[in-house]
Amino acid sequence: MLTKAVIISIGDEILYGQTLDTNAHWLSGELNKFGIYVKKRHTISDTRKEILCTLREAEEGVEIILITGGLGPTSDDLTKPCLLEYFDTYLERDENVLNHIIKIFTARGRQVTEVNKAQADIPVNGEAIPNVLGTAPGIWIERNEKVFISMPGVPYEMQRMMTDTILPRLSKKYVKRGLIHRMIRTIGIHESNLADMIRDWEAGLPKEIKLAYLPGKGSVRLRLTAKGEDTDHLQKLMQDEINKVLPTIEKFVYGFEDEEIEEAIGRILMERKMSLSIAESCTGGYLSHKITAVPGSSQWYKGGLIPYSNELKNEQLQVSLEMLKKHGAVSEPIVLTLAENIRKAFHTDIGVSVSGIAGPTGGTKEKPVGTVWIGYSEQDKRAAKKFLFTKDRMLNIQYTATAALDMIRINLAKN
Amino acid sequence: MLTKAVIISIGDEILYGQTLDTNAHWLSGELNKFGIYVKKRHTISDTRKEILCTLREAEEGVEIILITGGLGPTSDDLTKPCLLEYFDTYLERDENVLNHIIKIFTARGRQVTEVNKAQADIPVNGEAIPNVLGTAPGIWIERNEKVFISMPGVPYEMQRMMTDTILPRLSKKYVKRGLIHRMIRTIGIHESNLADMIRDWEAGLPKEIKLAYLPGKGSVRLRLTAKGEDTDHLQKLMQDEINKVLPTIEKFVYGFEDEEIEEAIGRILMERKMSLSIAESCTGGYLSHKITAVPGSSQWYKGGLIPYSNELKNEQLQVSLEMLKKHGAVSEPIVLTLAENIRKAFHTDIGVSVSGIAGPTGGTKEKPVGTVWIGYSEQDKRAAKKFLFTKDRMLNIQYTATAALDMIRINLAKN
Repeated sequence: MLTKAVIISIGDEILYGQTLDTNAHWLSGELNKFGIYVKKRHTISDTRKEILCTLREAEEGVEIILITGGLGPTSDDLTKPCLLEYFDTYLERDENVLNHIIKIFTARGRQVTEVNKAQADIPVNGEAIPNVLGTAPGIWIERNEKVFISMPGVPYEMQRMMTDTILPRLSKKYVKRGLIHRMIRTIGIHESNLADMIRDWEAGLPKEIKLAYLPGKGSVRLRLTAKGEDTDHLQKLMQDEINKVLPTIEKFVYGFEDEEIEEAIGRILMERKMSLSIAESCTGGYLSHKITAVPGSSQWYKGGLIPYSNELKNEQLQVSLEMLKKHGAVSEPIVLTLAENIRKAFHTDIGVSVSGIAGPTGGTKEKPVGTVWIGYSEQDKRAAKKFLFTKDRMLNIQYTATAALDMIRINLAKN
Repeated sequence: MLTKAVIISIGDEILYGQTLDTNAHWLSGELNKFGIYVKKRHTISDTRKEILCTLREAEEGVEIILITGGLGPTSDDLTKPCLLEYFDTYLERDENVLNHIIKIFTARGRQVTEVNKAQADIPVNGEAIPNVLGTAPGIWIERNEKVFISMPGVPYEMQRMMTDTILPRLSKKYVKRGLIHRMIRTIGIHESNLADMIRDWEAGLPKEIKLAYLPGKGSVRLRLTAKGEDTDHLQKLMQDEINKVLPTIEKFVYGFEDEEIEEAIGRILMERKMSLSIAESCTGGYLSHKITAVPGSSQWYKGGLIPYSNELKNEQLQVSLEMLKKHGAVSEPIVLTLAENIRKAFHTDIGVSVSGIAGPTGGTKEKPVGTVWIGYSEQDKRAAKKFLFTKDRMLNIQYTATAALDMIRINLAKN
């Protein structure tokens, strides 16, 4: 039997659209990795009525109820009083938690007030879940073969609590791996073209396997999902199907499972002991940011330049003013020169450049908003490609970064 | 009476934690701006049973039911069949929508199949909502004084549909502004210290006004919310309270409502006709990205350099190797030199620099992971400040960017 969970996010700031609920997203991903199916997610306000109603409704048909938010020390944090009411129980102070709170406050040189101490009060039918990064402990309550877990809304506190305590306990308690996911990650091909290419394979998939297309900004992930009892059999079935489809789409596959395109490129560059530098204009730092978000990227990424103005393109990367005047900054000769000159100036094996019109202004009839040129340079190889993306500034920045990373991937594949 | 809405997000990819549900977040924010209160959000899987059950449950106690997802042309898109079943109705082809679909396919040079044409089929008890950016129209159905709105899950299609058609219609149909928000945006002060500073003011707030602290990465937003009938009165009440508290916290307030710190800085630099350049090491492009995400930032942001390696710090920004050896790259003299030299090299009024240990590796006993130095340089002014953030790479990058922007704000305030 598949273990099912429900997630309840409590917080007016979420319903007001002021805070993006990344907690429910993160929890969904982690539970799925452990083979736990998230049946539904609720986002509710910090009121007694909503919390109690939702608890009642949510626990139907699931084994695990996860709650985030409303655990702070202030009076508008209602989760704990609601749990008391829901389970008809009362609080008892947990000495371990109390000592932890006192320790944290002392380290910060602050007085422990009665309000702070009250955070150590735990419903007697439950137990405290340690919060190593904060003062509000989680709460673990079991009733009728179901587990109710209440956690703080601060993302890193919640995540640490899940990783250290909750997920290990849940995976011990429930059968693992009734739900299996595999992910094939593609780039540089549109969802509908990909669907055309693999139509026959998709039609022939065994009934245990469900396929989904997850389009991103310039990339598409193919998700295979299998539910069932015999997980070894399912794993083999999935791998067989992946092996079958790969030759058809190989050109567009850059990796599997969790690997992002920037991680895949880092992996290849590390293997080949090659280094990279970037001159990015219209992406304004986003491309370098994606790359440097990868831990250890300093081993293969040497640095970048953001020549946002034409003056800097000329002074910092020796693009001649005549050339800029003749072709415009968004053109093939300019990105080729930028890529070559950043490679030479920064002493790297590869130089990549990006120049485009992100919008909302700056477009012309010949070069409308969304026009982007990307350049690539190695000592004995050069390439440039033109793209036309959208009318939206942020989308253009994101699409361009993905396309530049894909350009690196494609040219590395030619070596 | 307050107009209430509920949001239903349909999609297995959300429940699997593979796609972050930004739609529900965006919708919440927009509805709130129009004074519509989002009572609850549901995230459910693409199954007939879940969709029908949730519709039934969701429409209780609200006037507006918004649904995203499950409107595509493929067989796993179940929203339309479920709406037919829920309202016991049938489909009729909408000629306007059909023409729009044919136009889009023709422009892309693709054949219109029967599956594509079927996207023009709309429940007879409802009407089509134009989708200028895609082929799946939205659906607007009214029953018992309630509006049911079904939209595609593609964010930019949904957003355009809301902005062009749905929000104007909703605001005409329902009383506007039963719910008012004001936001005071602070930076460079911890939530608990801020709370201490304004304790008396908070205690004296009129009962119509609710206060909430919304902490971000290095910033805290203070949200004032008022619900009631007489919105003019509430507006005045709110403004009075804001005027009362401002003198106490002025030093930390950079703006109001939707304004981000990078927009606030851009506003000031434009007013003063000043320009900015950045040398960022540990943030790896993120700081420049935040700045260049602001439309029109090219008017005051000239460019940046990401000297990720020490070699580049030396060659590109003339930081001497002796200095690097003596003090280490993460130090006061280095960030002061970087800030001054980027300002000079890029011919800007202000130069800012960032150097730190983002982690997970690279920390030492003297300079643990999370240690960051930020430098600031104007022709007749210079400053540097040390920070100690977290053990987490992404958090450190985000906190550093915020702190650097705050450093610019503080130094501009001194002029």
